[in-house]
Amino acid sequence: MINKAGLTAVKGFKYAGINAGDSKKKNIGLIYSTTEETYGVAVYTKSDVLAAPVMISKENDAITNKKRAVLINSGNANAFTGKKGFNDAKSCTNKAAILLDIKPEEVYIGSTGIIGRELDVDSILNGVKKSAKDLMEGENKALDFIEAIMTTDTRVKQASISFEIDGKPVNIASCAKGAGMIMPNMATMLCVITTDAKITPTMMSKALNASVEHTFNCITIDGDTSTNDSIFLLSNGLANNEIIDSEGENFSIFTQKLHLLMEHMAKEVVNDGEGITKFITIKVINTPTRENAKSIAFSIGNSPLVKTTFYGQQLNWGRILMAIGKAQTGLNCNIIDIYVNGFRVVGDGEPALSSEEFKKAEQSLSDRNIDILIDFKQGDDKITVWTCDYSIDYIKINANYIT
Amino acid sequence: MINKAGLTAVKGFKYAGINAGDSKKKNIGLIYSTTEETYGVAVYTKSDVLAAPVMISKENDAITNKKRAVLINSGNANAFTGKKGFNDAKSCTNKAAILLDIKPEEVYIGSTGIIGRELDVDSILNGVKKSAKDLMEGENKALDFIEAIMTTDTRVKQASISFEIDGKPVNIASCAKGAGMIMPNMATMLCVITTDAKITPTMMSKALNASVEHTFNCITIDGDTSTNDSIFLLSNGLANNEIIDSEGENFSIFTQKLHLLMEHMAKEVVNDGEGITKFITIKVINTPTRENAKSIAFSIGNSPLVKTTFYGQQLNWGRILMAIGKAQTGLNCNIIDIYVNGFRVVGDGEPALSSEEFKKAEQSLSDRNIDILIDFKQGDDKITVWTCDYSIDYIKINANYIT
Repeated sequence: MINKAGLTAVKGFKYAGINAGDSKKKNIGLIYSTTEETYGVAVYTKSDVLAAPVMISKENDAITNKKRAVLINSGNANAFTGKKGFNDAKSCTNKAAILLDIKPEEVYIGSTGIIGRELDVDSILNGVKKSAKDLMEGENKALDFIEAIMTTDTRVKQASISFEIDGKPVNIASCAKGAGMIMPNMATMLCVITTDAKITPTMMSKALNASVEHTFNCITIDGDTSTNDSIFLLSNGLANNEIIDSEGENFSIFTQKLHLLMEHMAKEVVNDGEGITKFITIKVINTPTRENAKSIAFSIGNSPLVKTTFYGQQLNWGRILMAIGKAQTGLNCNIIDIYVNGFRVVGDGEPALSSEEFKKAEQSLSDRNIDILIDFKQGDDKITVWTCDYSIDYIKINANYIT
Repeated sequence: MINKAGLTAVKGFKYAGINAGDSKKKNIGLIYSTTEETYGVAVYTKSDVLAAPVMISKENDAITNKKRAVLINSGNANAFTGKKGFNDAKSCTNKAAILLDIKPEEVYIGSTGIIGRELDVDSILNGVKKSAKDLMEGENKALDFIEAIMTTDTRVKQASISFEIDGKPVNIASCAKGAGMIMPNMATMLCVITTDAKITPTMMSKALNASVEHTFNCITIDGDTSTNDSIFLLSNGLANNEIIDSEGENFSIFTQKLHLLMEHMAKEVVNDGEGITKFITIKVINTPTRENAKSIAFSIGNSPLVKTTFYGQQLNWGRILMAIGKAQTGLNCNIIDIYVNGFRVVGDGEPALSSEEFKKAEQSLSDRNIDILIDFKQGDDKITVWTCDYSIDYIKINANYIT
């Protein structure tokens, strides 16, 4: 279903990724839609501290749904930089608008990097100019864009999905940079999604919000939330399907495919989490509410003790119980089942593994993928959350520690 | 104010700490009050998963305020061990009661160690017998007790405080084992406090709860909560002061001194946190409510990125802002001041350090003690929270990783 062919699966977009200033890596990325009737919707970090680019993208959402470009810089988050930071980001969208002959409010802007550091705005503005000149279609240019928005993600993350609506081929494509704080001082998850589906901004927004809740809102590397997280969805309508302007079969198909792609991308982000050695899937099922399941799953997923036990390939399942208990949902934990990699470690609230099974179960932890399933048997709601372990490299990376 | 002389500052208690079964370290600890009129109150973990000893101590609280003994085993948490675990713990209190000629409900019981593993109850019961025989007064016996309740805390943690009530000398003494998951699989904070003050159980309970909220509830090593956390407070009334049975000056004095001692002990627990290299004090002041201040302080204190930046001795203060933002209190972050080790890194919501000052501030991070002060300027409530950094040793310890 998911194609590794990424951004270029959707036609009608040009890309650039260039080095601005003294940067050794590409640090300015620009996507531009050649179709005038291109619309955009977005979701942003829930942090109380919003980076300047998030504030401006939100302002631009309020003015118009038309969006022709996404401009992203890496290396500096332009967060907590006061009025100057806000004005600097504004200058960037203005500059891009002039160069692309569109309105400033038709530009999405994103940043990722160190928080609280002033932007070298002149070098960035030169970079915007350079990238606008450099815009072209094609895979290599798309790669330039993706590399420009990476901080030190260890690999390019992009994918696409193709399907039909009313017999017309439709495509959705996406790229993302990691939530992993992969290099010292770096943070932020940024994701760009493009589609040629013809769909109203209202329905795009509905589809995006529904999918985010079950995909990007269900991953955690370390429980820390960036000031800059943004997901931008742009559609240029080139698929020429009958416009999706209400709920119904076509909207369902679009939402389902968007969901699939976003789930893939969200997992990709976890899979490139800093210092990751284990990819952990946590399913919590049969709870009275999804909120119960969510707080339990995240309590497990963010627990340093759970994360380190899997890093150490030790089946210390008591730590999973500790994390369930500390979620303080008030659910009855004395009837639950817990499975790790298919092994039933807890049955009806009691330890369930023979010592021989324990050995086998612990051996299975040498796999990269770890599956945890918890059945609460007291309701019919559920959630799936994806996370990774905590390794020595996580600490080294984030403490800038060099051996 | 705080004396390093520990438990023995309060007279009238006997102690034992012995090796049961094959244990290489002391693993059964017993405290016994020789005074019949000894009363006890306690606070317990808020986890939804309660260890068997916590359930039994709670039951005993409901039956009587008289408490003559505290029995603790280390190495096995007796948590999530089903009915057998419950019955095993019950057998232990029954055995202790018979040996000490007191009622079972006059015994507090605590456990610390691996969750979900069956207790070797025969060996523990033999240990209870051995420890009851071994009970004696004196410093060496008190040390035996403390060593028996340690898992692999790196050092004994005990202290006391002496003061006067109505001209009579009064003492409070305490020992604790660490919240640090200092060895693989180990968890739990246990604290025993004894006093010779004459005070009703109701007023003891008031004093204990008030102090816990500002001391042990204000520390975090890694945000993980044990199934077994317990704090036991016993008074034997030997100081013979006029009984404290209501609020008033004498109650205030007692509460204030208890608070001082408990703050000291709570900090001691952090200072012995697993892999600690930095002791971090986080003060959040001038918020509309204490709840605001608390969620911000813990968001900072539990943030892996904040913890690792201080481990790395890097002044990446943007991570403090990230943690403030993710607390989602809705407070205005654009007017705040942030101080690190006295250096004003953020002033009125904007970066405030010159590059020269930045260097000095970063150099100050080589100290073991790090002080963070955040002034929100939008209310008059506040909190102080104590935590530690995340080090490579934290991961090694908790993953049982051996280089």
